[in-house]
Amino acid sequence: MRITLINPNTSRAMTAKIAAAAREVAGPGVEIAAVCPETGPAAIESHVDEAFAAVAIVRLIEDDIAAGGSDAYVIACFGDPGLDAARELVDVPVIGIAEAAMHVATLSGRHFAVVTTLSRTLGRARDLLARYGMGEACVSLVGSGIPVLDLEDTASTSFERIAALAADEVAAGADVIVLGCAGMTDLCHALTARVGVPVVDGVGAAVGLAATMVRMRVGTSKRDEYAPPPRAAVTV
Amino acid sequence: MRITLINPNTSRAMTAKIAAAAREVAGPGVEIAAVCPETGPAAIESHVDEAFAAVAIVRLIEDDIAAGGSDAYVIACFGDPGLDAARELVDVPVIGIAEAAMHVATLSGRHFAVVTTLSRTLGRARDLLARYGMGEACVSLVGSGIPVLDLEDTASTSFERIAALAADEVAAGADVIVLGCAGMTDLCHALTARVGVPVVDGVGAAVGLAATMVRMRVGTSKRDEYAPPPRAAVTV
Amino acid sequence: MRITLINPNTSRAMTAKIAAAAREVAGPGVEIAAVCPETGPAAIESHVDEAFAAVAIVRLIEDDIAAGGSDAYVIACFGDPGLDAARELVDVPVIGIAEAAMHVATLSGRHFAVVTTLSRTLGRARDLLARYGMGEACVSLVGSGIPVLDLEDTASTSFERIAALAADEVAAGADVIVLGCAGMTDLCHALTARVGVPVVDGVGAAVGLAATMVRMRVGTSKRDEYAPPPRAAVTV
Amino acid sequence: MRITLINPNTSRAMTAKIAAAAREVAGPGVEIAAVCPETGPAAIESHVDEAFAAVAIVRLIEDDIAAGGSDAYVIACFGDPGLDAARELVDVPVIGIAEAAMHVATLSGRHFAVVTTLSRTLGRARDLLARYGMGEACVSLVGSGIPVLDLEDTASTSFERIAALAADEVAAGADVIVLGCAGMTDLCHALTARVGVPVVDGVGAAVGLAATMVRMRVGTSKRDEYAPPPRAAVTV
Amino acid sequence: MRITLINPNTSRAMTAKIAAAAREVAGPGVEIAAVCPETGPAAIESHVDEAFAAVAIVRLIEDDIAAGGSDAYVIACFGDPGLDAARELVDVPVIGIAEAAMHVATLSGRHFAVVTTLSRTLGRARDLLARYGMGEACVSLVGSGIPVLDLEDTASTSFERIAALAADEVAAGADVIVLGCAGMTDLCHALTARVGVPVVDGVGAAVGLAATMVRMRVGTSKRDEYAPPPRAAVTV
Amino acid sequence: MRITLINPNTSRAMTAKIAAAAREVAGPGVEIAAVCPETGPAAIESHVDEAFAAVAIVRLIEDDIAAGGSDAYVIACFGDPGLDAARELVDVPVIGIAEAAMHVATLSGRHFAVVTTLSRTLGRARDLLARYGMGEACVSLVGSGIPVLDLEDTASTSFERIAALAADEVAAGADVIVLGCAGMTDLCHALTARVGVPVVDGVGAAVGLAATMVRMRVGTSKRDEYAPPPRAAVTV
Repeated sequence: MRITLINPNTSRAMTAKIAAAAREVAGPGVEIAAVCPETGPAAIESHVDEAFAAVAIVRLIEDDIAAGGSDAYVIACFGDPGLDAARELVDVPVIGIAEAAMHVATLSGRHFAVVTTLSRTLGRARDLLARYGMGEACVSLVGSGIPVLDLEDTASTSFERIAALAADEVAAGADVIVLGCAGMTDLCHALTARVGVPVVDGVGAAVGLAATMVRMRVGTSKRDEYAPPPRAAVTV
Repeated sequence: MRITLINPNTSRAMTAKIAAAAREVAGPGVEIAAVCPETGPAAIESHVDEAFAAVAIVRLIEDDIAAGGSDAYVIACFGDPGLDAARELVDVPVIGIAEAAMHVATLSGRHFAVVTTLSRTLGRARDLLARYGMGEACVSLVGSGIPVLDLEDTASTSFERIAALAADEVAAGADVIVLGCAGMTDLCHALTARVGVPVVDGVGAAVGLAATMVRMRVGTSKRDEYAPPPRAAVTV
Repeated sequence: MRITLINPNTSRAMTAKIAAAAREVAGPGVEIAAVCPETGPAAIESHVDEAFAAVAIVRLIEDDIAAGGSDAYVIACFGDPGLDAARELVDVPVIGIAEAAMHVATLSGRHFAVVTTLSRTLGRARDLLARYGMGEACVSLVGSGIPVLDLEDTASTSFERIAALAADEVAAGADVIVLGCAGMTDLCHALTARVGVPVVDGVGAAVGLAATMVRMRVGTSKRDEYAPPPRAAVTV
Repeated sequence: MRITLINPNTSRAMTAKIAAAAREVAGPGVEIAAVCPETGPAAIESHVDEAFAAVAIVRLIEDDIAAGGSDAYVIACFGDPGLDAARELVDVPVIGIAEAAMHVATLSGRHFAVVTTLSRTLGRARDLLARYGMGEACVSLVGSGIPVLDLEDTASTSFERIAALAADEVAAGADVIVLGCAGMTDLCHALTARVGVPVVDGVGAAVGLAATMVRMRVGTSKRDEYAPPPRAAVTV
Repeated sequence: MRITLINPNTSRAMTAKIAAAAREVAGPGVEIAAVCPETGPAAIESHVDEAFAAVAIVRLIEDDIAAGGSDAYVIACFGDPGLDAARELVDVPVIGIAEAAMHVATLSGRHFAVVTTLSRTLGRARDLLARYGMGEACVSLVGSGIPVLDLEDTASTSFERIAALAADEVAAGADVIVLGCAGMTDLCHALTARVGVPVVDGVGAAVGLAATMVRMRVGTSKRDEYAPPPRAAVTV
Repeated sequence: MRITLINPNTSRAMTAKIAAAAREVAGPGVEIAAVCPETGPAAIESHVDEAFAAVAIVRLIEDDIAAGGSDAYVIACFGDPGLDAARELVDVPVIGIAEAAMHVATLSGRHFAVVTTLSRTLGRARDLLARYGMGEACVSLVGSGIPVLDLEDTASTSFERIAALAADEVAAGADVIVLGCAGMTDLCHALTARVGVPVVDGVGAAVGLAATMVRMRVGTSKRDEYAPPPRAAVTV
């Protein structure tokens, strides 16, 4: 089984980190590939960035299909950009890390909190909560003020900031913490140890869900909405 | 006052039709400009198309800003693609025609139905209803099976099909009909006459709302989520 | 085009102020008339007051119809009293200032807060939010403790109190402020300047929406619920 | 214990029928008074009628207070007109028959249907369902097309029509039927026998709830929203 | 009329206290019986306890039926354990004290708060709020940290703690307080006096509702879900 | 890794079938154990059965813990009985097959339908949909009228009935089918082939989710609600 992770920003370091986290959860018999685009934003931190990310994901999946395709795809960006578009392109599972993290969080406790990067991304997270039916289960969304790429450069400082915010949420009633950025994946186990409740990283969750669906032989439904798109007349 | 309409598909005929509809509602003192991209899909009928549409809208607004800018923007595609991204780019109003049509529909009656093109686009419409708080007010979403571009070529056949569906919805309880595609804008008054309840076209609604907000001096809030995006490191 | 504003309290000063605000937004070609009842409460600050306001609005619209009628009506009281009843009486648009303000606020930002007069009116505002599907978009409802008529007498003190409350809401996450009383209409632009986010006054919003609907030829749907009422047997 | 029922229409026959139904459920030690206004609509079948009904209820309660007051009040009209206003006037319980019927229905089964008079009143019923949190529990609202006063004149025909509609709803999944008009109160037991599931009449439900609250010493909360209204400046 | 109260814990003292509270509200002509199991947990403070409570309630109702049955049953534990199962066993009313208290609270004010025992039980209370449609009406759920049985031993200390929490909720906006444990029933009137808003005890509320339904001849609907269970093959 | 499946009915044949389905999805390195109680109902088809099932699950988990414990538990009954109680007993993952199936269904398509056994169980399924935030994603719940144990005896007839119902739901708009009973697990792949959209069996979904959580080192949060229950005073 081959699962391809798509990091829609251009950071190769983050792509490598995400792949490592995925391999830790994948289990035996699952091959992990990880790709990112050559051009575009180095981090996805705005709605404008998400617009470019969605197009990058479409193109990377088309490239992967041309090269033989994968058994499942994971979109490794917490805004789940391009998720619906990707599902139109294939009949295998496509999982976003935000949806994966949110679903798994509800299996671990009753009330999760999301700790993410810049507060300007909370609107997108709120829209995803609503779409996935998680509005009641999520008791708080909090921005740390840490830009995505700073997670790469100053991990120790970021860890303390994120740990403090997570601990505040636990004190206020959250019994599970969800990490709101793929770039936080390497902080997960240390945070669990620090805050004393389960901390959920969407990358591992998405890989596990994708592998489960492959073994269940459940892919993306091709009935109507996710059927191959009718792209008859594209001017290039 | 200058309002720029952005049609994110490449159909110049549809762009001209939308501009005409907008001018009919704009009222005195409002100049209407209408633009569409040079490249990309000729119609927006899938999530993949919407991904490309969002990027096209970002680029067209950036071009307009470079050329002096407008007092407001209208996104003339019923999926409201790129709406959040566009709001990051300007501090003037940006209105999507789906949101405009839905808001106005609730001022005219209690239960609206949306009649649109291909049923595969209903998922996106449903997401927009939820986001705009219109889930209760909308009693039905129905696809006509008519591709967007067929609205241009075979308007008389399309009209009969759309009128029949709208009449069915009125019989079932809808007291307002919303047109689910910018390409239907020229059918609006004839449909009103046929079905006997108000029929709402989003293009006119969006232009009226945009002009109202300009006169109220209410633009896009630049607090946090819609502040200018931090696009420091884009690889081109 | 003639739009009649109905202030359901007996304050002629407030009626004049509302008319002035309406004219500022109306744009060219729109005539604004403003009326208020001869008898009844001088301010609408309780459910009992609203009951009398609804009857006053019915009677004022019946009078206006007898005098030739208008192209649209605006109910200039934030509780939107008598809105459903008014819609039964005419086939032109009838807009409440609360609904108008809430709809426009969602086009300007993601999370609005309402700042109003006495906290006892918040229950009615909450009911309207639910009815209009605005429960998610409104992040806070706050009473200033200022009685409606004090807005007339001590405007400068009121302004400081309202500005402070609005600034608190912005700090807590609101990106748009909605004024919760027609009597605050003259504070709108100064508040915008003070708090740094768009401030929405329902009077202007309602006039703009009403004019838009007139130009769109979209009135009140007369299908069933808002059909003329069967008032066969009224004992007088 | 004295409970006063207020029928806000001018039909004395219906007032007497409602009083009889109330006495059947009241139990020992509860005195039932029933009043209706001298002037106003003979039936409440539109939003305009409801506006007048609310004012009539305020005046009848003020009259009753002047005459010594009651231990509880029941508003015997399915639209629950004037309920909030009435609660401002007293500190004893005030119960609407729609809310009473809906609450009791949820104690009897999982899914109730409402069968009412004219379909134009369904909008108001839907608003009440939302306000009382009954949107999920109510699976259907159906209008019989029978005007309120026809319930008085042609009871046998009405019964067959209502029984047929109720039976349809039971076949479609409802396990409880709610009668959507005070004028149907005398049909309740015969309908129960016919359709084979519990049929709930709001008049009995409201009287039982009011008596329960009196015995519990739980009245209307006077904190803020329902505190006595500040009616300083009423022009008469 | 005979109403049987079922306390699903083994505390005979609490059973007696609950019976006394029930008799105070029952009114003339209503006989109150109260039972509790011989074995099982002495207090219901966890989901594990609730599992055993539900089975105990099934068995106590089966015993009561064997002994001639009652006109209605009240489940006197705030988690409403076994409520659905109990409704399968009989065609008379079965009322849980949580649902009864919540329904009555909404008739007294607009926003109730629940004050209960251990915070670990709040999850169950939240599930019940959602099921009964009370999510909007309930503005707060607060645990006092007082174990159920401590309510028996140290009533005066408990009272002060509960009163302080209730007063906090009133200050924060609640206009009605709901007691979240049957063991608090004797504190109700003193709390009302202390906090100045209505305090609702579910035991009295449930008894009143049950008696009302008996007088209305409305029992448990036996259509499908609550029909007698098909218990063909039970291995004992 | 060892995952223990708990079938709360006494059917050993069904237990074996469930274990086989679980092993198919478990993947390399995962040991599946499957247990059922000695006594109790042979099928879980009513709320009364669910009450006994919850207690059986508590006891089987306590037995497993006494025998050394497992890395995760799956409750293999579509009502997810005893799920909260089970989570109090352990700090490893506990997954119900209904929640697992619902979560996975939303990753495969936009609108799932549940096809289950007796229609009397739909109420419980509806409660679970609400609790898990799946009310919007589930477009239909349908009972087949097939008792659980008939799935064992007459599988071919059952298959045709279930396939026909599933096909109807797909025609009406569902793009994913969820099997509403653990006893249908062996029909899954043949149904997928028949109806042409993904069919989700909760047993496989739960095993895959449990294994994923074990590899992620995410167990049951022990903060407050799911902390070990305080069972001080149990009379046996």
